[in-house]
Amino acid sequence: MKANSASRLPHHLPATAQVVALAGGVGGARLADGLAQVLPPENLTIIVNTGDDFEHLGLYICPDLDTVCYTLAGLANPATGWGRADETWQALESLGALGGPTWFRLGDRDLGLHLERTRRLRMGQNLSQVTRHFCRALGIAPTVLPMTDDATPTWVYTIEGELPFQEYFVRRQCQPQVTGFRFEGAERARPSPGVLEALNKADLVVICPSNPWVSIDPILAIPGVRPAVQARRAVAVSPIICGETVKGPAGKMFLELGITPSALAVAKHYADLLAGFVLDREDENLVEQIHALQVQTLATDILMKTPQDRARLAKEVIEFGLRLSCTS
Amino acid sequence: MKANSASRLPHHLPATAQVVALAGGVGGARLADGLAQVLPPENLTIIVNTGDDFEHLGLYICPDLDTVCYTLAGLANPATGWGRADETWQALESLGALGGPTWFRLGDRDLGLHLERTRRLRMGQNLSQVTRHFCRALGIAPTVLPMTDDATPTWVYTIEGELPFQEYFVRRQCQPQVTGFRFEGAERARPSPGVLEALNKADLVVICPSNPWVSIDPILAIPGVRPAVQARRAVAVSPIICGETVKGPAGKMFLELGITPSALAVAKHYADLLAGFVLDREDENLVEQIHALQVQTLATDILMKTPQDRARLAKEVIEFGLRLSCTS
Repeated sequence: MKANSASRLPHHLPATAQVVALAGGVGGARLADGLAQVLPPENLTIIVNTGDDFEHLGLYICPDLDTVCYTLAGLANPATGWGRADETWQALESLGALGGPTWFRLGDRDLGLHLERTRRLRMGQNLSQVTRHFCRALGIAPTVLPMTDDATPTWVYTIEGELPFQEYFVRRQCQPQVTGFRFEGAERARPSPGVLEALNKADLVVICPSNPWVSIDPILAIPGVRPAVQARRAVAVSPIICGETVKGPAGKMFLELGITPSALAVAKHYADLLAGFVLDREDENLVEQIHALQVQTLATDILMKTPQDRARLAKEVIEFGLRLSCTS
Repeated sequence: MKANSASRLPHHLPATAQVVALAGGVGGARLADGLAQVLPPENLTIIVNTGDDFEHLGLYICPDLDTVCYTLAGLANPATGWGRADETWQALESLGALGGPTWFRLGDRDLGLHLERTRRLRMGQNLSQVTRHFCRALGIAPTVLPMTDDATPTWVYTIEGELPFQEYFVRRQCQPQVTGFRFEGAERARPSPGVLEALNKADLVVICPSNPWVSIDPILAIPGVRPAVQARRAVAVSPIICGETVKGPAGKMFLELGITPSALAVAKHYADLLAGFVLDREDENLVEQIHALQVQTLATDILMKTPQDRARLAKEVIEFGLRLSCTS
């Protein structure tokens, strides 16, 4: 069901507009899917956080890339947002019965993908090549790029000490109080092939409603990415509604870092990068303060419950973003 | 359901008889299970071929150890003899959809075990330690020992060149004509802890109905094992009935090596090690020729179709073997 591009884009917008989305986990994947629904595939590039990637059970696991790819391929578990629909858990159960670690939930179908990615990486392919191959195999038409092919693991500073991201996020369920973050090796990492090229020719850069601290900041930490985003003046979509994160620990992190969690806090976090900010209607009271940051706003319904919500929000974000760049 | 040892062993045999079985794949696992049914666990040690072991998809896979352990734990697939009962194949299907190799069939539950074994080996445990742990976790009471903790991969010489064992056995379905075998590194390998000790105190060594060329010979190639078996004068059970292998390529291998496949050929193969040889009633015509090798015979029904068959055959083998050692 591929609509022609004329019926996808608002008539008054250029059908050739190039859109780049920066995305992390579930929220990012959902808006990326909305963008994929309304844009011709050749007009959309999704740059995905790989700071969450880790090796576990000898497998190379890329949680955000997989969430984005499963979502775009229509394979994601609709209940959790991560992992696969119709998943089974035989391997993990068998491993657990032998005393193996089961804190990181790996379903059987998901395992098949991790085994194949690990095999290809060991053969000498880089993550970009593997991701391109997986997208082709899964029928994903837009370009999905890992932010880098280099390892830049996210560490979470907590009052209990520094934790690898998945230890903090999954094993410790985000319990330890956060004091900061570190993207190991990011300063020496190279953006993966196509990342800077896509940003430099983008008519619109969309910062998806992902966690600013651990999904988007790792992408911006890759040399060259932040200035390229800044040069395009991006549009961000808030991952926070009425002071609460839609999903994940972003709100808790803001709070623990001494910042009241809100759409305003997110807009401030990105302020130097933004031409526009999309927040929920429920947060319209914050609009004035965001305008004071020299950032335009669009208040709309940003909660994506259905695939239709994703497409509708994506369309509004594109219209808003391209209008801003036309008038700026 | 642990029978007391008095009811398990024939009354006229010493309840303290120590039995050591050498085993490879399905046939070996079935007789090992029969022995486990009729012997107190402390009286049975099973030494298993690890020449088939290989790394695949980054996993360390031990086909014969797993077949023996799954069989002893009652988890084996009764139809195939290898792999697990009630197995699912989601991971392999997912891997295959991404272009990964599916020629080696790995079920989901089986994968869980390979992941955990690989994890433990990477942590620095040796194969004996991992096997001991798995046996405890799976409720396997007899002692199961890998023949060695060192890598001694079996290579198959064929008219198409030398092939790693699993390439020959699974990927090429035993098609290429065999000209010989090589157990790489066997001459420098050390028997795993307990192997020589068990053989040296054995009242009876049983060579299970496994493939002589690629299941039993690799065990005998580990330094110290062949002389220890020879010193005990073993009893072997034929893997061939009426010139046909019950399962696997043993018959085809004999033929390609210029030897008519038969129970006699198997008895000759092991002759210097044997006090006795157990063959099928259908092969009673071969008894005279086997006696000419200075090897005693027991002709009985050696086809193990049911768990009851395994126990009955095991009992007959023990009675026969212990009687031989009493009278020798």
